[in-house]
Amino acid sequence: MSPETILLAIEVAATVAFALSGILEATRRRMDIVGVFSVAFASAFGGGTLRDLLLDRRPLFWVQNPEYIWLVLAMALAAPLLLRAMRHRRVDRVMEGADALGLGLFAISGASLSMVAGMPALVSVLMGAITAVCGGVLRDVLCNEIPRVFHDHVPYTLCAFIGGAVFLVLHAQGVAPMVSTGTGIVVTSGLRLLAVARGWRIPAWPRGGDGR
Amino acid sequence: MSPETILLAIEVAATVAFALSGILEATRRRMDIVGVFSVAFASAFGGGTLRDLLLDRRPLFWVQNPEYIWLVLAMALAAPLLLRAMRHRRVDRVMEGADALGLGLFAISGASLSMVAGMPALVSVLMGAITAVCGGVLRDVLCNEIPRVFHDHVPYTLCAFIGGAVFLVLHAQGVAPMVSTGTGIVVTSGLRLLAVARGWRIPAWPRGGDGR
Amino acid sequence: MSPETILLAIEVAATVAFALSGILEATRRRMDIVGVFSVAFASAFGGGTLRDLLLDRRPLFWVQNPEYIWLVLAMALAAPLLLRAMRHRRVDRVMEGADALGLGLFAISGASLSMVAGMPALVSVLMGAITAVCGGVLRDVLCNEIPRVFHDHVPYTLCAFIGGAVFLVLHAQGVAPMVSTGTGIVVTSGLRLLAVARGWRIPAWPRGGDGR
Repeated sequence: MSPETILLAIEVAATVAFALSGILEATRRRMDIVGVFSVAFASAFGGGTLRDLLLDRRPLFWVQNPEYIWLVLAMALAAPLLLRAMRHRRVDRVMEGADALGLGLFAISGASLSMVAGMPALVSVLMGAITAVCGGVLRDVLCNEIPRVFHDHVPYTLCAFIGGAVFLVLHAQGVAPMVSTGTGIVVTSGLRLLAVARGWRIPAWPRGGDGR
Repeated sequence: MSPETILLAIEVAATVAFALSGILEATRRRMDIVGVFSVAFASAFGGGTLRDLLLDRRPLFWVQNPEYIWLVLAMALAAPLLLRAMRHRRVDRVMEGADALGLGLFAISGASLSMVAGMPALVSVLMGAITAVCGGVLRDVLCNEIPRVFHDHVPYTLCAFIGGAVFLVLHAQGVAPMVSTGTGIVVTSGLRLLAVARGWRIPAWPRGGDGR
Repeated sequence: MSPETILLAIEVAATVAFALSGILEATRRRMDIVGVFSVAFASAFGGGTLRDLLLDRRPLFWVQNPEYIWLVLAMALAAPLLLRAMRHRRVDRVMEGADALGLGLFAISGASLSMVAGMPALVSVLMGAITAVCGGVLRDVLCNEIPRVFHDHVPYTLCAFIGGAVFLVLHAQGVAPMVSTGTGIVVTSGLRLLAVARGWRIPAWPRGGDGR
């Protein structure tokens, strides 16, 4: 497979995984088809859309590729079947892998687009994390929850930060784009998978000697 | 009356209805005048503002027509009187009609602006729905609620989708703009009024054979 | 000190105060370092970023001055120490002063940027208030609370409105920029400090003769 095919496959898998996380939260709250589609849409495209608004890029990803809207719409309509399939433990693990791949792909593509737009390195790493994480943040806000990535204490955004930094360092060293991109994605996704497999935890940030 | 006068009258009525929905929610939560104005403003202009950010259109609707800001400000200041009037059942029904008209007007104007900007059909229908619905979504997020349109199970966004699709199909058939626009608004608003009058319901989306 | 140095000092103090308000809320909810940094970032830069999106200004403040991102990152990392220091009553009062100064600086700089962009007066006053207040609104939304400025009944946004109006009136009278800017900041910040010191309250907006 060519690198383009691989990246496209990751992109589709990641969109499916992100949309599915929205469908799960929306159906859990007894939403109707409109709510399920809206939350799935926000989960899948919220991060990239916020990045494009901040960087003033147009057209937006889902405007340029409306077939992804159809994909999310079809998933929302097929949600009852999809969720039944999700009960199998193996599907659950496949989704975890797709989500980790999506984290890597979105973080590095966001950092790369930001770098191309001439942003400073720190801003590019941030833009990568925003791309990868803000869809989930928006999903949780729409479901009236504190964003899970802020307080579930499992490394997620941190992996995007580290992978994005690795990508930018490699790029600054003159490494070929395919290598720096690939390494960034592998580091981000690999760290995430390791974090889940090993049960790594980030502590709640102490409030200053109050003993809690 | 000329079509322009009719559209302007609908626009004013819709802005009043949308702002009032924000005033109702804000006063219910014991907010002060700042909160009441802010939530009314977000309810009335949130959808159109999000559409303009996504399409990269400027100036924004309320920047170009600051008299609408004065209108919402006056409504927030007069809220105690307005809400007393709302207790009459007849006013309540007038507001329901104004809200349905606003749904139709905002959905079709959003779809039309998006179409003029060269967006694909599906994106234009979406932009119409975003214009019509996201003010209410923002209102509910600011009031710390799950957006009502996602889970009250009464058709609202669906009417905007159907009316927007009708508008785009007529336009693609070469129908005169006044006819396609008018039909789109009538279909959207009419479906909404029918849904409320007949008590139509959209089911909660099942979670896959769990019997709930 | 030159006016530039004074404005820079206020800007740093305000960013520190706004970021600290986010750190306080985030640690109170047992977030990890990612959540603490994200909420602090949103509190410090949310208002200015929203203003720049609405006015279509680029580069964003924190893109142009990434050293402010480092500042907020350092504060999030040092949060346990900072929060211990905050327990001293004097630090608390210093922070109140920095927050009031930030309110004044952000409100007037927002109104001024909007005026320069050719916005009508009412829109410029609104943009000032949005700049000063929407960071805190975003902080509270991310922490799953109704925004405090909407219902804590202590004048805050109102001070920004009044100060912004004073600034615009002086500017329209042909007063020198340094004087109109300075007066606007002093009025905004002074009103806020007075409101806190004197315990001024804005009433909950009545819901129309229901006796509550």
